[in-house]
Amino acid sequence: MTEYTAFKVELTDNIAHVQINRPDKINAMNAAFWEELVEIFQWIDDTDAVRVVVISGAGKHFSSGIDLTMLATLAQQLGKDVGRNARVMRRTILRLQGSFNAVDNCRKPVLAAIQGYCIGGAIDMVSACDMRYCAADAQFSIKEIDMGMAADVGTLQRLPRIIGDGIMRELAYTGRRVDAQEALRIGLVNRVYDDQAALLDGVFAIAREIAAKSPIAVAGTKEMISYMRDHRIDDGLEYIATWNAAMLQSEDLRVAMAAHMSKQQPTFAD
Amino acid sequence: MTEYTAFKVELTDNIAHVQINRPDKINAMNAAFWEELVEIFQWIDDTDAVRVVVISGAGKHFSSGIDLTMLATLAQQLGKDVGRNARVMRRTILRLQGSFNAVDNCRKPVLAAIQGYCIGGAIDMVSACDMRYCAADAQFSIKEIDMGMAADVGTLQRLPRIIGDGIMRELAYTGRRVDAQEALRIGLVNRVYDDQAALLDGVFAIAREIAAKSPIAVAGTKEMISYMRDHRIDDGLEYIATWNAAMLQSEDLRVAMAAHMSKQQPTFAD
Amino acid sequence: MTEYTAFKVELTDNIAHVQINRPDKINAMNAAFWEELVEIFQWIDDTDAVRVVVISGAGKHFSSGIDLTMLATLAQQLGKDVGRNARVMRRTILRLQGSFNAVDNCRKPVLAAIQGYCIGGAIDMVSACDMRYCAADAQFSIKEIDMGMAADVGTLQRLPRIIGDGIMRELAYTGRRVDAQEALRIGLVNRVYDDQAALLDGVFAIAREIAAKSPIAVAGTKEMISYMRDHRIDDGLEYIATWNAAMLQSEDLRVAMAAHMSKQQPTFAD
Amino acid sequence: MTEYTAFKVELTDNIAHVQINRPDKINAMNAAFWEELVEIFQWIDDTDAVRVVVISGAGKHFSSGIDLTMLATLAQQLGKDVGRNARVMRRTILRLQGSFNAVDNCRKPVLAAIQGYCIGGAIDMVSACDMRYCAADAQFSIKEIDMGMAADVGTLQRLPRIIGDGIMRELAYTGRRVDAQEALRIGLVNRVYDDQAALLDGVFAIAREIAAKSPIAVAGTKEMISYMRDHRIDDGLEYIATWNAAMLQSEDLRVAMAAHMSKQQPTFAD
Amino acid sequence: MTEYTAFKVELTDNIAHVQINRPDKINAMNAAFWEELVEIFQWIDDTDAVRVVVISGAGKHFSSGIDLTMLATLAQQLGKDVGRNARVMRRTILRLQGSFNAVDNCRKPVLAAIQGYCIGGAIDMVSACDMRYCAADAQFSIKEIDMGMAADVGTLQRLPRIIGDGIMRELAYTGRRVDAQEALRIGLVNRVYDDQAALLDGVFAIAREIAAKSPIAVAGTKEMISYMRDHRIDDGLEYIATWNAAMLQSEDLRVAMAAHMSKQQPTFAD
Amino acid sequence: MTEYTAFKVELTDNIAHVQINRPDKINAMNAAFWEELVEIFQWIDDTDAVRVVVISGAGKHFSSGIDLTMLATLAQQLGKDVGRNARVMRRTILRLQGSFNAVDNCRKPVLAAIQGYCIGGAIDMVSACDMRYCAADAQFSIKEIDMGMAADVGTLQRLPRIIGDGIMRELAYTGRRVDAQEALRIGLVNRVYDDQAALLDGVFAIAREIAAKSPIAVAGTKEMISYMRDHRIDDGLEYIATWNAAMLQSEDLRVAMAAHMSKQQPTFAD
Repeated sequence: MTEYTAFKVELTDNIAHVQINRPDKINAMNAAFWEELVEIFQWIDDTDAVRVVVISGAGKHFSSGIDLTMLATLAQQLGKDVGRNARVMRRTILRLQGSFNAVDNCRKPVLAAIQGYCIGGAIDMVSACDMRYCAADAQFSIKEIDMGMAADVGTLQRLPRIIGDGIMRELAYTGRRVDAQEALRIGLVNRVYDDQAALLDGVFAIAREIAAKSPIAVAGTKEMISYMRDHRIDDGLEYIATWNAAMLQSEDLRVAMAAHMSKQQPTFAD
Repeated sequence: MTEYTAFKVELTDNIAHVQINRPDKINAMNAAFWEELVEIFQWIDDTDAVRVVVISGAGKHFSSGIDLTMLATLAQQLGKDVGRNARVMRRTILRLQGSFNAVDNCRKPVLAAIQGYCIGGAIDMVSACDMRYCAADAQFSIKEIDMGMAADVGTLQRLPRIIGDGIMRELAYTGRRVDAQEALRIGLVNRVYDDQAALLDGVFAIAREIAAKSPIAVAGTKEMISYMRDHRIDDGLEYIATWNAAMLQSEDLRVAMAAHMSKQQPTFAD
Repeated sequence: MTEYTAFKVELTDNIAHVQINRPDKINAMNAAFWEELVEIFQWIDDTDAVRVVVISGAGKHFSSGIDLTMLATLAQQLGKDVGRNARVMRRTILRLQGSFNAVDNCRKPVLAAIQGYCIGGAIDMVSACDMRYCAADAQFSIKEIDMGMAADVGTLQRLPRIIGDGIMRELAYTGRRVDAQEALRIGLVNRVYDDQAALLDGVFAIAREIAAKSPIAVAGTKEMISYMRDHRIDDGLEYIATWNAAMLQSEDLRVAMAAHMSKQQPTFAD
Repeated sequence: MTEYTAFKVELTDNIAHVQINRPDKINAMNAAFWEELVEIFQWIDDTDAVRVVVISGAGKHFSSGIDLTMLATLAQQLGKDVGRNARVMRRTILRLQGSFNAVDNCRKPVLAAIQGYCIGGAIDMVSACDMRYCAADAQFSIKEIDMGMAADVGTLQRLPRIIGDGIMRELAYTGRRVDAQEALRIGLVNRVYDDQAALLDGVFAIAREIAAKSPIAVAGTKEMISYMRDHRIDDGLEYIATWNAAMLQSEDLRVAMAAHMSKQQPTFAD
Repeated sequence: MTEYTAFKVELTDNIAHVQINRPDKINAMNAAFWEELVEIFQWIDDTDAVRVVVISGAGKHFSSGIDLTMLATLAQQLGKDVGRNARVMRRTILRLQGSFNAVDNCRKPVLAAIQGYCIGGAIDMVSACDMRYCAADAQFSIKEIDMGMAADVGTLQRLPRIIGDGIMRELAYTGRRVDAQEALRIGLVNRVYDDQAALLDGVFAIAREIAAKSPIAVAGTKEMISYMRDHRIDDGLEYIATWNAAMLQSEDLRVAMAAHMSKQQPTFAD
Repeated sequence: MTEYTAFKVELTDNIAHVQINRPDKINAMNAAFWEELVEIFQWIDDTDAVRVVVISGAGKHFSSGIDLTMLATLAQQLGKDVGRNARVMRRTILRLQGSFNAVDNCRKPVLAAIQGYCIGGAIDMVSACDMRYCAADAQFSIKEIDMGMAADVGTLQRLPRIIGDGIMRELAYTGRRVDAQEALRIGLVNRVYDDQAALLDGVFAIAREIAAKSPIAVAGTKEMISYMRDHRIDDGLEYIATWNAAMLQSEDLRVAMAAHMSKQQPTFAD
């Protein structure tokens, strides 16, 4: 397993555990974070043995968002011409977005396990995951508004697909804190666990359940749900028909059917 | 009224009751089911006297989804060439989708009344209905994942428009059971009734309420809401303007206005 | 401040209070209402000192929707040729929609404070606002169905982005009343206040909070969330990157950062 | 081969020749025409032995468009209520459109061979074909404008994808005649032949060429080009990748490669 | 008829002639131009007696594009904050675009008659017209590139729908001159006339032809073609079906049919 | 300058010349080709000194398309399970598409200079360029159909935006040769030069012309035209307004204006 400076990554039982690992910095997202995340998800995508991903944060908090020293560095790239500055800015934002796009585009389900602070860039990140689970002490805030800027690495694009439009706007305009129970009520998380230990136990149990399914079936299911965020129902129906034209010829249906008949647990190849 | 083998269909008080009628097979969807459903909804669409549709399942369960013996038959259509198999598969899936598209495209509201199992293909079906109501014993499961396949007759396309994205993914990846109360909380059903009798009473009461409205107004309302699942707000506004350019010249507005003035119940033509 | 006949408009502390002001007519939307609303929002858009908008209704009710005498006047425009009538109707509907589009397109957040009746056209109106808050006595009804027509000034287009699809259809087909608690549960309002006084206190507190943020950041945030109702995630990401290419060169980031460092409240220019 | 009243249909060498066969009525499109066309293309779609379709018109002219007596019959369906008339009209138009959608959606290439008049509904029809070829005496006119109506069975939707926007509008607003040479210049037809005999020879030669290709490859090619009329480039790229994931596993690639190596003509299964 | 400073407007025989009337300034587009254009097209849209519009330029040239002194004035609006400057700029561009949107959205066909220079903003303008015709001395140039900017009032958005993608890019990147014959060949104009007099004669002849058609049919035809620049074929088919559900109930069909039977010219109401 | 095995790359006068450099293999696209192309365009995108790109092929032919030995290697990746093969195939196709996406997404104009064969994958490649120019001996063929497959690296997605729909289909279904003059007539190339020397002279002259323009203006122009292939006109107008909100604050406008006033050639920074 490659070593990373901002993350700790482990692969056990077909589950990749991607842990943000800068607990003394409240897991703030520094330059290494953004680059390594792309590499990690490239590896995940290329490794058939990885069937599910869990993202968590080391220490008391999930993450406080983008590292402010990194922002300062970015600001130093700017020169005198507004037009050329805009050109640099635009490309930098697109590059940062690319890190969370790698999470979103991952062909395997990504589960976020959140405790403590989940602020600013951290919400952009978990919005790019498939499902979110949290401990009772979790606190969410779309903090970018208090930095004088509109969030630009994914929250404003992905979160309105996850929570209601009315509450989305209130949270984005005010940046106010949301606790675990409200997060559950508005659909931001799927479940609240008592504490961090219970959270990780619970999330890994769900991950194991998914890892035991046919990876062909899980990948197709994820592709289709993600596709529907942006496409029409008729296009979606045609897409799954084309997709399954190949995938229903897979061994996995026979394996599943045989297990169903013999009332045993099926075992699927990677 | 035509006789069907997989359904029992009745028309009373402008309400068509379409009952899946294979209770000894847990209302599993066999070959006749898919064909007859298209015919039934063709008849519904052609019959102005039908103003609302209720779909229910005979016996203790709504439906256990696609009949496995039918799947086996489909598997026998396949030959040696992967490409030509894909061609056959793709067309078969599109044809099966067509049966639930007939439900979705129906010009009149379709209400699903669900008790007991609502599993696999049954969720695809109720996702194509306008509203879903259930008895306290209802159990939902996106079961396709356990057959080693991505659901391909509509659940993955339509359900994300109905329930939240985060819970959608959990249910689709794990196939876990959802009970009536959770179904209510996540928006999968509009209301939970104590038992099957109360369920049918309640759903037919709502159906009668809708059947008493102007069918011109109800049809326009359905067209617009369905349209908005896939279109932009500005397109939707232009579409209703064009639609109502004709429909506001209907008698029904005068009938409604006269009833309003005289504080009586209006009676609308079919 | 301009005087209006259907509204009372005030600007205090960067908050424009737009009050529907025909309490003796239950704030029914007459011809003046539709015209003045456009003028008011033109002024709001042109006035940098306005940072947030609150819409409320004078008296015991928010609004009973479109004024029936106005509808009667519209009916008199019609002649003998169905085609030319349709031409007139279509343009009239588009013009009325334009009034609520002005609310929706406003570059600043618009908060609706709702007490008592919020019926028919009033729901079309609040659906075009960013957030909705109500008093405990609020009652909502998509009343158009009872006038023999499909709602055509925005409810059917915007509300499905705010509340769930299943409940949306039930409310639109039946026109049944929704009380404050149900409105909260289905996401129609963000919060319920005990009475009208508490409602206005609460909404103005939120408005003040937003008015204290960077107007550049708030405007960008609103633009992005509104954009995502109708656009793809990848388009949204590119759009914010292009937008922020200019906006991150604003003074407001420096102001926010300096305040953050000095642990003081930032003060942003209009 | 089934007998039709408005058409003569033959299948030779994998080419289905669909000939409009009412030469004494200038091949006007009567009620039988619209119904039979759907049946014919259902048969074409279901018959793997059909690899290419040629549509032509018997006699001196391709077709004069919709039969006016049929229009008169449609007019008699109308009653007193404008709203219910609109409901009938809308469904009738959708049904007529369905006949040409069957041509457009056909999974095999459809070539139109046009001589003499190609007017009104006939342009709607050939706009739904893949390619158009004509004799030197061909005359085209978007005649609907002279009947006091906007064309509504496909010309206004499909022709702008085929010819330039500027000339499209001139032809649609004026209904003026276009001769063979202009048709070639604006891209309406691919080639002009001296007379009807040369036209049929030429078109069947192209049809035979296509019929000799892999039907799997041709079907995929058609699906992709048709898809691109309405979809984004990135969606199109993903779609062909999903499609070819199955189709590149077909025998046809090996057959083609072997023929290429041995410098012989490949023979593909249906 | 209202008097304008940048235009001369006449209404004769149902044709509105909108002439840019600053020949001594090569019809450069000054502040009055942009404002008056909106007013003129508002009047055109509101006036049923106007059935067709011809836009031309007084003097030797059609127009040299935006007035540079106006640009200088705009530049003076800018202050010190890049973010707030961007806010001003964006709104100004949107406002200028609005003037040509008024041309594009006009419900009646707009024909451009072009002689001499048609440069920069003038191409943005004629791209918003339905059809373009020119005299032999016409010269076109997408001149914005030489002002150090990307054209932002419509050329880059509308012209690619009119001319081919490959030549579009060459013209936009280089700003090179296109003469009348090339303009004809690439589809930028529909026809080339010998000189300005022949041009106006020719264009007015076409305009008269269109003005004699049913205005209901022409408006529907324009709406549909414009709609298809941005929408799918299936959406377009549904839209015309909904549109014609009302419009086929118009008198104009009967008028047209009667004229057809009696072989006379029909006369349609406005 | 990095050395490549499949390409020769030079940067002179702000123009990057990317030459396919396997003349003894008719510039067939081998594994190195696909990888190096991505690297080259990454360098181009990162290097502000590159303002324009010219792609050409060394030797007598532009390129014969994908290297058949590479296809054979790909075939060896396949195993026994159709589903897992499809997974591999799909990802391989997406990866190959990525190489031409890099050309398409390049922020600077890319000009293709084509002589001799331009076949199969070579058409996919030039379809991803901004403009195409050819020598009189050029020959084009969508050759994939003869390999028993639908083209899957871009021709079917991008070419229909460049040439007419009718001729597109004929060329794609038959794979027939298109010579230089026909290529010009159908819009596939912008100009035909007598021979390869004249071709390179001509293309570099155009490239130099573009390289002398403001790179800020050229980049914005390209972004907008590319955007319009897939987006609505109203979205495009809003996008350029947002883009130019920053870019009109660039120095380049002042430089251009000053040069215009002094009748001198402007000099723009990279």
